[in-house]
Amino acid sequence: MTDVYCALVHYPVRAKDGSTVTTAVTNLDVHDIARLARTFELRGYFIVTPIEAQRQLVERILAHWRDGGGKKRIPNRADALSRVRVVDTIEAAAEVIAQEARGTQEPGTAPRRIATAARSSGRELGSYAAEAKLLAAEGPPALLLFGTGHGLADSVLDEADTLLPPIAGRGDYNHLSVRAAAAITVDRLLGDRNSAE
Amino acid sequence: MTDVYCALVHYPVRAKDGSTVTTAVTNLDVHDIARLARTFELRGYFIVTPIEAQRQLVERILAHWRDGGGKKRIPNRADALSRVRVVDTIEAAAEVIAQEARGTQEPGTAPRRIATAARSSGRELGSYAAEAKLLAAEGPPALLLFGTGHGLADSVLDEADTLLPPIAGRGDYNHLSVRAAAAITVDRLLGDRNSAE
Repeated sequence: MTDVYCALVHYPVRAKDGSTVTTAVTNLDVHDIARLARTFELRGYFIVTPIEAQRQLVERILAHWRDGGGKKRIPNRADALSRVRVVDTIEAAAEVIAQEARGTQEPGTAPRRIATAARSSGRELGSYAAEAKLLAAEGPPALLLFGTGHGLADSVLDEADTLLPPIAGRGDYNHLSVRAAAAITVDRLLGDRNSAE
Repeated sequence: MTDVYCALVHYPVRAKDGSTVTTAVTNLDVHDIARLARTFELRGYFIVTPIEAQRQLVERILAHWRDGGGKKRIPNRADALSRVRVVDTIEAAAEVIAQEARGTQEPGTAPRRIATAARSSGRELGSYAAEAKLLAAEGPPALLLFGTGHGLADSVLDEADTLLPPIAGRGDYNHLSVRAAAAITVDRLLGDRNSAE
């Protein structure tokens, strides 16, 4: 089984007008996606922001759960948050992952980057089924990339090894929260198909 | 295609110790699940709370998006929130749904209640595949029930027509946020299997 990681990217992401911006970290994104990552046994969840004050903020939240009052109050939350790491760039996350390569993977093996987007961009798309199959087998580690704001910047999509299709609902409305989109994506890729079907 | 609704239940739900409590409404649950409901074309999203002050709070939030500044700023959010309704009991939601029966359904047709739970309770479980098939066909309306706190009270599970299996990740950790659990459940039941597979 492949080691899977995810990253919530706060830069570079798109603003409403298509320009590239940095978004603010929100506490709830840290918690919700950490719980998701723990449930589906992702090996790590990276919060990506170039803003040092924001990285410090997340580290303070994590310390509360690692060593502070949070752990006593809700131990399972502390467990989930123990997988969270804070980095300044996607590249830094990829480097950490490469260092953690284990099993059949050579140390230094770069992760395959799997990008997600809510909008169609004309790029070639992978499929959830093909990715799920790859992740169920032994292979290089995988890094799932989720964008905040109005989605990952084009440069991130361009550098990804795979771009997953937008999550289609029943109509043409497509404005899920990143928390919901991450949950659906991870379930499609790693969920127990026996319970799902 | 069946008319599907969902409800986020703040009473009766379980506390950590198994007792029955009322939880507080959170703004983010209103938004995230409204966006999910809109994406998957649910016909309505009910916030269920017996506390009048909480119902008024949600109505104020909705008014901001229906008539206030929110609609101008983020029209698609206003669109999603237009499906939200606030009721005091699950029964009241079921009555509204019965009044809205259309198509091949007789007016007054009560919805099938589909409950969700993160814990195993020894009750007989439905399956996502069987439910997805039912919902894809013409049938009585369906009401998906999601619990806040530590999940729907036993009385709600007992009165449901179907209880879906807990969402299994890769291990035994099972503490998704209700926002993530709702997203995964709705995708398993109504998601475009062509894009998912």
